[in-house]
Amino acid sequence: MKNSIPRVNGPDDYTDEMADKRLAFIREKTGVEAGHIRKYSFDPARLQGNIENFAGVAQVPIGLAGPLLVNGEHAQGEFYVPLATSEGTLVASYNRGMKVIKESGGVKTTVVDDAMQRAPVFHFTDAREARDFGIWVTENFESIKAAAESTTSSGKLRNIEQYPAGKMMFLRFNFTTGDAAGQNMVSMATFAACEWIKHRYPGIQRYLLSGNMDTDKKTSYINTLRTRGKRVVAEMVIPAKVLEDLAGAPIDVLIRQRHVSNLGSFMAGANNNGAHSANGITALFIATGQDVANVAESSAALVYVEKTKENDYYYSITLPSLIVATYGGGTGLATQKECLEILGCYGSGKVKKLAEIVAATVVAGEISLASAVMAGEWVSSHEKFGRNR
Amino acid sequence: MKNSIPRVNGPDDYTDEMADKRLAFIREKTGVEAGHIRKYSFDPARLQGNIENFAGVAQVPIGLAGPLLVNGEHAQGEFYVPLATSEGTLVASYNRGMKVIKESGGVKTTVVDDAMQRAPVFHFTDAREARDFGIWVTENFESIKAAAESTTSSGKLRNIEQYPAGKMMFLRFNFTTGDAAGQNMVSMATFAACEWIKHRYPGIQRYLLSGNMDTDKKTSYINTLRTRGKRVVAEMVIPAKVLEDLAGAPIDVLIRQRHVSNLGSFMAGANNNGAHSANGITALFIATGQDVANVAESSAALVYVEKTKENDYYYSITLPSLIVATYGGGTGLATQKECLEILGCYGSGKVKKLAEIVAATVVAGEISLASAVMAGEWVSSHEKFGRNR
Amino acid sequence: MKNSIPRVNGPDDYTDEMADKRLAFIREKTGVEAGHIRKYSFDPARLQGNIENFAGVAQVPIGLAGPLLVNGEHAQGEFYVPLATSEGTLVASYNRGMKVIKESGGVKTTVVDDAMQRAPVFHFTDAREARDFGIWVTENFESIKAAAESTTSSGKLRNIEQYPAGKMMFLRFNFTTGDAAGQNMVSMATFAACEWIKHRYPGIQRYLLSGNMDTDKKTSYINTLRTRGKRVVAEMVIPAKVLEDLAGAPIDVLIRQRHVSNLGSFMAGANNNGAHSANGITALFIATGQDVANVAESSAALVYVEKTKENDYYYSITLPSLIVATYGGGTGLATQKECLEILGCYGSGKVKKLAEIVAATVVAGEISLASAVMAGEWVSSHEKFGRNR
Amino acid sequence: MKNSIPRVNGPDDYTDEMADKRLAFIREKTGVEAGHIRKYSFDPARLQGNIENFAGVAQVPIGLAGPLLVNGEHAQGEFYVPLATSEGTLVASYNRGMKVIKESGGVKTTVVDDAMQRAPVFHFTDAREARDFGIWVTENFESIKAAAESTTSSGKLRNIEQYPAGKMMFLRFNFTTGDAAGQNMVSMATFAACEWIKHRYPGIQRYLLSGNMDTDKKTSYINTLRTRGKRVVAEMVIPAKVLEDLAGAPIDVLIRQRHVSNLGSFMAGANNNGAHSANGITALFIATGQDVANVAESSAALVYVEKTKENDYYYSITLPSLIVATYGGGTGLATQKECLEILGCYGSGKVKKLAEIVAATVVAGEISLASAVMAGEWVSSHEKFGRNR
Repeated sequence: MKNSIPRVNGPDDYTDEMADKRLAFIREKTGVEAGHIRKYSFDPARLQGNIENFAGVAQVPIGLAGPLLVNGEHAQGEFYVPLATSEGTLVASYNRGMKVIKESGGVKTTVVDDAMQRAPVFHFTDAREARDFGIWVTENFESIKAAAESTTSSGKLRNIEQYPAGKMMFLRFNFTTGDAAGQNMVSMATFAACEWIKHRYPGIQRYLLSGNMDTDKKTSYINTLRTRGKRVVAEMVIPAKVLEDLAGAPIDVLIRQRHVSNLGSFMAGANNNGAHSANGITALFIATGQDVANVAESSAALVYVEKTKENDYYYSITLPSLIVATYGGGTGLATQKECLEILGCYGSGKVKKLAEIVAATVVAGEISLASAVMAGEWVSSHEKFGRNR
Repeated sequence: MKNSIPRVNGPDDYTDEMADKRLAFIREKTGVEAGHIRKYSFDPARLQGNIENFAGVAQVPIGLAGPLLVNGEHAQGEFYVPLATSEGTLVASYNRGMKVIKESGGVKTTVVDDAMQRAPVFHFTDAREARDFGIWVTENFESIKAAAESTTSSGKLRNIEQYPAGKMMFLRFNFTTGDAAGQNMVSMATFAACEWIKHRYPGIQRYLLSGNMDTDKKTSYINTLRTRGKRVVAEMVIPAKVLEDLAGAPIDVLIRQRHVSNLGSFMAGANNNGAHSANGITALFIATGQDVANVAESSAALVYVEKTKENDYYYSITLPSLIVATYGGGTGLATQKECLEILGCYGSGKVKKLAEIVAATVVAGEISLASAVMAGEWVSSHEKFGRNR
Repeated sequence: MKNSIPRVNGPDDYTDEMADKRLAFIREKTGVEAGHIRKYSFDPARLQGNIENFAGVAQVPIGLAGPLLVNGEHAQGEFYVPLATSEGTLVASYNRGMKVIKESGGVKTTVVDDAMQRAPVFHFTDAREARDFGIWVTENFESIKAAAESTTSSGKLRNIEQYPAGKMMFLRFNFTTGDAAGQNMVSMATFAACEWIKHRYPGIQRYLLSGNMDTDKKTSYINTLRTRGKRVVAEMVIPAKVLEDLAGAPIDVLIRQRHVSNLGSFMAGANNNGAHSANGITALFIATGQDVANVAESSAALVYVEKTKENDYYYSITLPSLIVATYGGGTGLATQKECLEILGCYGSGKVKKLAEIVAATVVAGEISLASAVMAGEWVSSHEKFGRNR
Repeated sequence: MKNSIPRVNGPDDYTDEMADKRLAFIREKTGVEAGHIRKYSFDPARLQGNIENFAGVAQVPIGLAGPLLVNGEHAQGEFYVPLATSEGTLVASYNRGMKVIKESGGVKTTVVDDAMQRAPVFHFTDAREARDFGIWVTENFESIKAAAESTTSSGKLRNIEQYPAGKMMFLRFNFTTGDAAGQNMVSMATFAACEWIKHRYPGIQRYLLSGNMDTDKKTSYINTLRTRGKRVVAEMVIPAKVLEDLAGAPIDVLIRQRHVSNLGSFMAGANNNGAHSANGITALFIATGQDVANVAESSAALVYVEKTKENDYYYSITLPSLIVATYGGGTGLATQKECLEILGCYGSGKVKKLAEIVAATVVAGEISLASAVMAGEWVSSHEKFGRNR
């Protein structure tokens, strides 16, 4: 069919010639000469497993921000952060926040939980059978775990959560997945477990590998509560003096403003009571070859602040469902690998380091925007809160 | 400071030399030779307004899917869709869905609402003053509108929603913004309106330009309910025969499966009862120069299906907060502009066309994945659902 | 059928004899002698329209709390509040809070919005028709309003919100309903409006009087955002001295504790970031003849606090969907009417007064419990927070 | 103080004389002669622990519905259900639904989970300490359990969930509580556990007994997901013939209508995709002496339906956070005890039976209202869906 995009099967599909053919096809169909798209700088052979119908690349501008001072368990020291975006002021804003972080002694980062899911649903004749199946799953966890882990060397089944409803049992399989984001790994492992179960437990009417409680590529309360990917906390203390220079406002004003932002986001039913964490996360995801669609989940955030005994500003943000990888997906591609290397995050055992850098970067953006908003308030209100009155 | 990323102010910052300097700085700091990042194919001078501390580009693979048959009001005919991703099988899956769409006669797309927000919050002495202020805002809408629109030629203030809480009045200014996504446009317009208000209405203690009810870069119930960006519906009817070939299951099984997915997402508290709309949206956003961080909002979706009188499958998905632009942001960059041109979406008056293409693409991915899951169920259950085959 | 509960049609069903017959039937079926249930003190004839198959009453203990000092627009002065509950300590706790309110100069209450809904859904061939129908609804609002209001003397149609999804248009009719809660009134009025619409607008496939976006007897984000029943704010300033005596903690500890409670409820996905507003609301609802099932919606709450310039504690709670009535339903029954009279809320034009008293009562409970929790913290932590005592 | 409601301490407060004094006080203050409130039929001495400042009772009308045919594990056979309400048509509607249930062979009920919570929050210096504390909690679960259970004979600590955020660890202690609802029991047990922890684990800055993740008297996603009180499923199959007589519509119309209701409630952000479960729950709660404020949580519901192979209608509703008791609270009061006895639910070991009856009652109301709505659709649309065309 002459409307079909040119394609051959297998490795031969990943060549300059095939890219040329496709762009020629596009030119014929649309009249568009896609010269820039074709200007990739690598051998397309490496793209097998990353793309189909390859025709070239999107060139997304990268700006550098930093140094970002991180006091993590895995990320330690100063980092220069490549941010891929076309939104003006984004890099400048994050850069500004990183300066505040440095003046404040750095941001402390901690991965507090780690779980990737596949959530199958099993159908039964009635709710009692569904419940009894749940008891059996608990009793047979070790065997189910063995069946699941038979498909993977790095995936480990941590536990299985149960959510009974109607005559169904929704299960949520929680895995750790090494340096990979792990969505495919856990799908295969969970499928193996489900097939093992299906042949051993009588009375299953049917099962589906996903009952939409995973919740993949979707933000949800279950992800925020129970973690999806890494649960990372980034926290810092901004000294009172730094704070006033920054926001032009004393700490009590910032504390009050946080109550307002909490209320606005709570009333709105948002997945995030912070400002714009998605900006930094997305720019880092594009730069480092992450699955950018996971911004859906990864954009959830929980901000908590305090005035310390010394009248300094304790700031924290918790990313409850940050999905990152330093292995698999787009992490090995040309520019993506370079960006990971710039962060010292390429190679095995680096995924938590990357998670910490992402969370630290998010803090830079939050501090920067919040202080800009505060400075605006300060100006707009000519308020003297506690000072010259 | 030798730790500072090299920078000069103004247009001179956007040169090959400055990119080289920054990569040299990175090499010195990290030992990484970022050769691929430097391989952009355009003149960096055009990047002013899109990036700061420019050092090169992320090269994100583009695959082509199509033809996608769209029966929109603005998008009509067959489209070849550039998808920028590094997630293997994504392009193939969307491509498969587009075949089903074509066999089914195309997907119908409709932009049903359009609104971009900035949501300031005004503080008063007590709730009564906040409420009375709301009455005044309603009475003075035309003047406020004039003040807001004085800052923009394309932004139009549609209405102002009021959300009183405590002694505050949260306002939500809803604009149409032409071909731009409009976040900056509405910020400036709302700021002008707020300043106008501040000087006319007595008793305002202070205001903040955002009370976190916008909700920018965050998914929320308010966005889903009241629209953010475009509210687009994509719908189609899949003939029974196509459906059975596709999913290997009769329509009643798909209808039942939708109930299961609805329940799973409802119980999980997800922002989306569909499968993975974020995948297609993100890949199109990267390719066409959208603000990719808006995947946070844009990933919300509402699926509704029906069995028709003819036993065909009516499928619809509503994207209540899809943020797209064909003007401004990254839309004019080298590869991004080419991708918009491939879709016939570059230039003025094209934003609704692009919104329709995005929504139609989303349908392709949903149909493709849902049928794959269904086929899996069918196989796994050897179920005979209502007949003997 | 001898298993049937004894019944006659019409007024004759509401007699002592019928109650006796039913209790005799129960005795025969279950052996239970329901002597206390039978001990009502009024003429059952008045129950027509309030109950079917009447057999007696539940006797729910009433405790008195007060005086509650209210500085409302409608409720002014000191009130003694009848609370019907069987939960020990509830009355004592609210009573304690009322003392704090009095010491602090009273609680200020304001009804900031007022809307009761019925939300029909209209089906069309496709999304375009649904959207176009929405335009027609806007253009014909005055006629639709006339049709709706033809069925009621006290209900007034304020506006109609539109929520398009798929090929449907969900409408949300917002009424004011005088002194009644108004659910039945708005159902009849909306039905009349829908029938009027159905005969004038071509292309409606079908409509349902409720598309589950009302959302009646259910809490929801739409209720919290857009108001259901009365939206009432209760606010007060607790002087620093009163606060310390009360909670044994300085104001900064309370401010911090509010951040913790905000975070907990936000992460949990609660409909209320306060403590236990449902307790006071329910006890007042039972006492005063409200539709107690509306506790589902009415329990939503939004707490916002501030430290004032004088270091006092500004506390506010917003009840966004408080459903109350002083007319209709159970408000005219024997004990219920007495309780309304005790509050000075029986008779016409009293519904906002009652709303204010409910909100003020809620504050008493929140302050009381919060301070108890705080006192616990103080003790448990032996914390010195900023000073040496 | 002459504004004080008359009170004496201890048992002497619970007498007819004290009630008289309080009503005299009210008469003096308000002029209201509260004769009906005073007409209780029991000895107030038994009220100690249930109420303070006792002055009389609310007389809430009770109507009888039934027989309700339940095929539960704990509730088996026909029940006559006392419903306390003043909302006309409620009893009639539930009664109608119970007839449909009987014609359909009864409703099957299953308690699938059981957990009552108290959720303290522990503060640390930073997120790492919070996380490490979590590990210690897991390792010391048996000792913590022993400390908790030392305060109660019937409460059993099932597990402790962990929700880290910022520098805090929110814990959620899940107990079973015998026949009691258990909120007080678990508070005391959790307090004992927290004190035990506090003296053994160094580095705790402070803790609060509730971090607002319990979430008591509030609906929340965490309650729906993780259960609060009993998680009960009620399910039934309505034969096609019964269904058509009932709703006047074939099954496919009901299936479609369910999709509409699912969509409406999902878009609205409701805690319930059903119709009005709060009605039946509230009426039973008032009649049987439950803590009626728990309607806030108990009103959450998850409806799931299917067309069976035989074209019958499988209907299920899951109540994920139904809080009931047959011991403690108001269950031993005069009329409340009689109502429990009528249901055969008074005495030990009856709480799951009551939970099943509540869930079965809810089904009656849902079926009744849904069929009424459907019948309305049928009439309004004159649609012939699949029959006479």
